[in-house]
Amino acid sequence: MTSKDSSQEEVSALVQAKMRDIEVAQGRRKADLVLKNTTYVNVFSRELCCGDIAISCGRIVGIGSYQGEQEVDYSGRVVIPGLIDPHIHLESAMASPAEFAKAVLPHGTTSVVTDPHEITNVMGEDGLEYMLQSTEGLPLDVFFTLPSCVPATPIDENGASIDYHAFTSYYQHPRVLGLAEMMNYEGVCSNDAEVIERIVLAELYNKQVDGHAPGLAGEKLAAYVSAGVYSDHESSSAEEALEKLRLGMHIMIREGTAAHNLAQLMPLIQEQYADRLMFCCDDKHPNDLLEKGHIDAIVRSAISQGANPITAVRIATYSAANYFGLRGYGAIANGYKADLVVLDSLEHFNVLAVYKAGKLTYSDAKVSPFSRPRINERLYERAHHSFNMPTLTAASFSEDCERGVLGIIPNELITNDCGFARNIDVSNDILKIAVVERHRATGHIGLGYIHGYGLRAGAVATSISHDSHNLIIVGADENDMALAGNCVAQMQGGIAVVCDGRIVASVALPVAGLMSDQSLEDINAQLEQAKRAAFDLGVCENVDPFMTLSFMSLTVIPTLRITTRGVFNVLSQSY
Amino acid sequence: MTSKDSSQEEVSALVQAKMRDIEVAQGRRKADLVLKNTTYVNVFSRELCCGDIAISCGRIVGIGSYQGEQEVDYSGRVVIPGLIDPHIHLESAMASPAEFAKAVLPHGTTSVVTDPHEITNVMGEDGLEYMLQSTEGLPLDVFFTLPSCVPATPIDENGASIDYHAFTSYYQHPRVLGLAEMMNYEGVCSNDAEVIERIVLAELYNKQVDGHAPGLAGEKLAAYVSAGVYSDHESSSAEEALEKLRLGMHIMIREGTAAHNLAQLMPLIQEQYADRLMFCCDDKHPNDLLEKGHIDAIVRSAISQGANPITAVRIATYSAANYFGLRGYGAIANGYKADLVVLDSLEHFNVLAVYKAGKLTYSDAKVSPFSRPRINERLYERAHHSFNMPTLTAASFSEDCERGVLGIIPNELITNDCGFARNIDVSNDILKIAVVERHRATGHIGLGYIHGYGLRAGAVATSISHDSHNLIIVGADENDMALAGNCVAQMQGGIAVVCDGRIVASVALPVAGLMSDQSLEDINAQLEQAKRAAFDLGVCENVDPFMTLSFMSLTVIPTLRITTRGVFNVLSQSY
Repeated sequence: MTSKDSSQEEVSALVQAKMRDIEVAQGRRKADLVLKNTTYVNVFSRELCCGDIAISCGRIVGIGSYQGEQEVDYSGRVVIPGLIDPHIHLESAMASPAEFAKAVLPHGTTSVVTDPHEITNVMGEDGLEYMLQSTEGLPLDVFFTLPSCVPATPIDENGASIDYHAFTSYYQHPRVLGLAEMMNYEGVCSNDAEVIERIVLAELYNKQVDGHAPGLAGEKLAAYVSAGVYSDHESSSAEEALEKLRLGMHIMIREGTAAHNLAQLMPLIQEQYADRLMFCCDDKHPNDLLEKGHIDAIVRSAISQGANPITAVRIATYSAANYFGLRGYGAIANGYKADLVVLDSLEHFNVLAVYKAGKLTYSDAKVSPFSRPRINERLYERAHHSFNMPTLTAASFSEDCERGVLGIIPNELITNDCGFARNIDVSNDILKIAVVERHRATGHIGLGYIHGYGLRAGAVATSISHDSHNLIIVGADENDMALAGNCVAQMQGGIAVVCDGRIVASVALPVAGLMSDQSLEDINAQLEQAKRAAFDLGVCENVDPFMTLSFMSLTVIPTLRITTRGVFNVLSQSY
Repeated sequence: MTSKDSSQEEVSALVQAKMRDIEVAQGRRKADLVLKNTTYVNVFSRELCCGDIAISCGRIVGIGSYQGEQEVDYSGRVVIPGLIDPHIHLESAMASPAEFAKAVLPHGTTSVVTDPHEITNVMGEDGLEYMLQSTEGLPLDVFFTLPSCVPATPIDENGASIDYHAFTSYYQHPRVLGLAEMMNYEGVCSNDAEVIERIVLAELYNKQVDGHAPGLAGEKLAAYVSAGVYSDHESSSAEEALEKLRLGMHIMIREGTAAHNLAQLMPLIQEQYADRLMFCCDDKHPNDLLEKGHIDAIVRSAISQGANPITAVRIATYSAANYFGLRGYGAIANGYKADLVVLDSLEHFNVLAVYKAGKLTYSDAKVSPFSRPRINERLYERAHHSFNMPTLTAASFSEDCERGVLGIIPNELITNDCGFARNIDVSNDILKIAVVERHRATGHIGLGYIHGYGLRAGAVATSISHDSHNLIIVGADENDMALAGNCVAQMQGGIAVVCDGRIVASVALPVAGLMSDQSLEDINAQLEQAKRAAFDLGVCENVDPFMTLSFMSLTVIPTLRITTRGVFNVLSQSY
């Protein structure tokens, strides 16, 4: 927003609000709200300070001795700034952003930066627009980075390609903070002009460019950072993270559902690095979110592993705000937004209450009701009708020909190359796997085999399959595979478990085939039921029945993957 | 600059440059320049690191082992990022910005943020424009903050009033970073809508608002910071600075010609506060600049007083860049501008060589020649003809009436109230003082008396008189006062020392009556000669003959001051 865009009335309203703040700060007028007798974390002086926190128009305007229209005594409690997640794909929660907000507010999160990479790969710009609309006015500030790789790779058959020249107009949106994780580090390092131009355009808008560079080091890393990529959330060792930090990168320490890097990166959590570190989740599945929490869980874990609590709070708040140039966020200080979290203590780090812009949004284990954002009709319809594919039959998958076998390694994202197969062979755990193009009715179906999944009968299908989110189906029987796939298509997305011609469990994810409109608790219950059904059909206990499949089409991780065109060898980059 | 303003050719050129950097970073192409075998200060990991620093297109693209078209071995030397002065009034050097650059480059300064408060009070927007043009393309990056108080106070008769609505268009200039020191803290705290609007307009452009709040504390300080003022350079005790830092302010530790705050603020120079501190000069007179240096002198002094050298360097570089959101400045890291200073050691902190954007600009005690900025003819003429006043005669100052006596206190800015006088009385050190309005030919001449200056004969006149820069004259004789005043007017500004109808010394400052077009060394020689002439005429040795007079019209410091309307009592705010 620039002054050019602001009318004189808008300016006057801002002046009036400031004048009110100034009156309150000097005790000439009562504050809207005063948190009395707090002990709070001052992220600037990096110490605990004491005082009443006076709030006016949603901002902190004084810390000392104040009176308010409303006063709440917090003697013996510790107040910290609202927690910030600087990198998350909201789609991973499989719920609407409103449901996500309801889930994370009790954990002290008041701001997140999301990369709508998944939905944009399904719906293009409309996906971004859908997420912008569905996060407007929530009691959680949802900022955005623009997905940098849509489609994810040239071989991906996804729902839409982004015109990056047109896309840059979104940098003028007040909630868009940068270019999202530049996964195509190979493209950067090999001087792909189109990829580099995306970075240049972000820089011209003075926006941040997030990175994604697992294991990148030495001269290649030097090239990647020099190109303008100043954050990374993929470091899995302290040495790796420190090399990146020294070159100028901000390090996002990640603890999500799929990846866990905190323990390895603990040596970095020191005062001297605190302004260059953040905590992020990257992805958070429903059960993880409901059971473990969010950024608070990372802070709690860091403290239990020996981190200085004040340093950890600083990392979880102001460091992220500063990285993104978010003025007025991440600190308990004058003029800052009153995003405040009341804890029992720094040691236990249990959240008792949360204030968002000075409004109580969580207390007594309850989130205050809030109105849901409105999404325009066209977008709603488009998001809820993202499937465009022919009906499947057993014949869609029956083909008498040799195909590669993907070998699952429990608790790893990488796969083994298990040779070739020509038929399903349940006794040797050789199942058929298919990826059905589901965006543009091309009829493309990629076929192959998979080992290590364990299914003994029936089929499992899911429309969450990174990064193009085509329909992925594994089965011991082609008829059941067709039924599972058709079931998911009919729901406009989701998960289905099928056996002997019968749907034994399903989870509808009708928003772009990725998210549900239901409550997070309901989604989680359905998912747990579907998981049990999959395990009942024989899926190995050490394999996540759905998440494992979701990564089988991600062609950037070795060794074998499957796409709409068949089995792909990542190492040789060939089918 | 936004992408909207950038043509496809500009974007392509940026992409091409980045592609070159990427090649160099990976050793596929020779760097333009490599500083071999350096030990350098890494402001991110806050440690000394080692390596070759490879430079391409003026940027650092790799640190490790590199080859370059040109290579310079710096074994045994320490390289630090170019020093940044976040708050200086360039006019205080009395020289052109090009001469200032020539003077500070040997001290390792590669960027400054200037507040053109003085020239703007003489020439309005044209003053800012003049400074922007005269700093374009220098081997020193000169950024600007927009003067917040023109005129300085409602009672000032200055050269121009700023229309702050129109002025905000300058926020779109790539070198304008914020609103300059909001000296009118009383206006902020008392809810002066016009003053607060200036802050709102800066915020709408996402710019910083600098403060100026000597001694402000408690609820008034709370109001000032809550209004959006996030820096201060006026703290004179560690307690004062820490109170401000805790509320969210960035603290500029000032060591200039007039004010010295480092010794008192040393307790703050610790790792825990380093990201919230900067070093600034505020003002730097020619002799101070030539003899003591610039930011390097502050760092050297801090280290000699026990500061950790790495912490001190961080404060003098990246902390300032980060405060102003200056991307690519203040660090030795990939993609950062190659503003580099080669030192003999951190302990001695002697500057051996300076690279500005990868170009050697200082070495072997010599600044490399550079072309001077061109100023358009209209602006040049306007700046060099800022005097508009009638010719003075003895009668202009002869008036038989009782007037207040300003009492000089050596080495202090405040004055005493020394009662009243009706006549010059040299034997009792009662001299006449006059302020002649010189911008708009109003003929206004304020008269009064002054004690403690010591002049025994003749007169001294100067056109540097804060903040309106009218002509200030002190004399033992009205005829000499007229001659001194006319001499300065004829020079279009400067300083004159007169005795018995003869000009005994003069310094021409024809640029807005504030600056010379000559070399800094010449200006300094002339100033020293004029000072000696003033001392020869009796000016007390513990009084700076010209600087002391410059502050006599500054109506924000107690007790008595003199303006174009006569003697003003700051405490009672009356004539």
